[in-house]
Amino acid sequence: MMNKTELSMNDFIGIVNKKLDEFFIIQYPEDLFKSMKYTVMLPGKRLRPVMCLESCRIFGGNYLDAIPTACAIEMLHSQTLIHDDLPCMDNDDFRRGQPSNHKKFGEATAVLAGDALLTFAPQIILKYSDNLSDETKLRVLNEYFQYAGAYGVIAGQVVDIESEGGKITGSLDDTLKYIHLHKTSDLFKLAIRTGTIIAGADDEKLEIMTEFAEKLGLAFQIADDVLDEISTFEALGKTPGKDKDAGKLTYVSLYGLDNAKCKLACLFDECYDIFKKYDIDSQVFIDIIEGIKQRVKI
Amino acid sequence: MMNKTELSMNDFIGIVNKKLDEFFIIQYPEDLFKSMKYTVMLPGKRLRPVMCLESCRIFGGNYLDAIPTACAIEMLHSQTLIHDDLPCMDNDDFRRGQPSNHKKFGEATAVLAGDALLTFAPQIILKYSDNLSDETKLRVLNEYFQYAGAYGVIAGQVVDIESEGGKITGSLDDTLKYIHLHKTSDLFKLAIRTGTIIAGADDEKLEIMTEFAEKLGLAFQIADDVLDEISTFEALGKTPGKDKDAGKLTYVSLYGLDNAKCKLACLFDECYDIFKKYDIDSQVFIDIIEGIKQRVKI
Repeated sequence: MMNKTELSMNDFIGIVNKKLDEFFIIQYPEDLFKSMKYTVMLPGKRLRPVMCLESCRIFGGNYLDAIPTACAIEMLHSQTLIHDDLPCMDNDDFRRGQPSNHKKFGEATAVLAGDALLTFAPQIILKYSDNLSDETKLRVLNEYFQYAGAYGVIAGQVVDIESEGGKITGSLDDTLKYIHLHKTSDLFKLAIRTGTIIAGADDEKLEIMTEFAEKLGLAFQIADDVLDEISTFEALGKTPGKDKDAGKLTYVSLYGLDNAKCKLACLFDECYDIFKKYDIDSQVFIDIIEGIKQRVKI
Repeated sequence: MMNKTELSMNDFIGIVNKKLDEFFIIQYPEDLFKSMKYTVMLPGKRLRPVMCLESCRIFGGNYLDAIPTACAIEMLHSQTLIHDDLPCMDNDDFRRGQPSNHKKFGEATAVLAGDALLTFAPQIILKYSDNLSDETKLRVLNEYFQYAGAYGVIAGQVVDIESEGGKITGSLDDTLKYIHLHKTSDLFKLAIRTGTIIAGADDEKLEIMTEFAEKLGLAFQIADDVLDEISTFEALGKTPGKDKDAGKLTYVSLYGLDNAKCKLACLFDECYDIFKKYDIDSQVFIDIIEGIKQRVKI
């Protein structure tokens, strides 16, 4: 059966790109839909949707059932990028090597396109998930609300911004961990958990994958901190060194570059250990991890 | 039975205010939750949640079942106010007589608080609507996504902003109608439709109430345009004359003050006609309509 066949990272990326393109039908007011689609369709690695589809496949689900959810998570991710790039936030003029959304469409449209994506994404889940039961749809939406909002990625972003302004009340270590857990791991958890839920896996498997997602997310964010320090505009597609200039709290600023690389290697080992312990076999997740390792040269 | 008793406008407002206060539990990061709660709890007429509860009551539903949805719609409405007031949008420093959200919490937090409300609101529906079937929950969420997003209130806001910049492609009449229908009527439709759906009313009744909501929303927006022209800061709680200064497309700017008042009276008559024709008895909606009439002195 098609769903049980192991698909490669590139297969999944191709499927996600095709469906994302299809889900956005440009209509009046065109600037709004074009702006929403623009950032979503910038060339990206599609890590989160691929993780969602692969998690579904790992546990014997039909990855086709997870496509609307996977695409919705990429839309949500794009929403966070659009608003993060705004002048009042990280003020970045470039994203994935192209003008950021507000540079292309203006600030007002960028704010509204981000807003629109936040409800467009779960609407896609509802509209196209015919094969999911009502109960599963509600579970998936619940995950979306939990990790997208005030308890998830936005909480991480708020503390991240506060850290720039020096408005930190707790310890630096705890604050950094909080930022990374919410700003990055929460979207990884959302992708991996929903894929696992759609496959119909039990709670024990869901817990295992949640732990895996948390570690992978932390690793990804530390890699991002490292790249901001060592990389170029060409490799990043956005301005490097911005975290440092902004006095941002990052793994590198707090513990130094060597410790960051060391922690990163450690987290990847722990990710592999989880898969080994529970006999989970996934070339796609191996490719994701090895891809990050290669970028940061560890 | 409690649900069948007719409650007054003020009864409903009291219930909504109490529940809204309860739904926001301030937790870390406190600035985020405080900012979300701040605009929601500013003293307001609670028109949309009251309409939702009353629509549920009209068709024999238990209004208690509609409370989470009613409160979610008020949160969504507050979200639109927070983002509308931003410097890149209407740039208003005041809202309901108090500093607007970004003046109080800063622009970055205001953007993120608005974002958070967009998923916090439907999460409240999911979390507290124990008495609704899964099917009804999904129907209500579907309405929320439809009217909150790119097909609803945000589409209206985008065209509204384009109209300020003179970027209008169609006729002025059609564009103004589009703005009013989406920017204002869509949230009225969301409130009234979800209340009607929760009551279990049939599709015919849903259509009637949708038509009613559309007319009431148009009237409300025209009244808003009139008030911007004739009212004071004290009465409005925000800066009057802003639409005119911004060269905004409004009913008054396009057709003049007298025609606006005339159209308003006409729309209210049509609202009453619908209720009369279908034998719908609602003191709450009468109070809402008469309240608006009094403010604009027609």
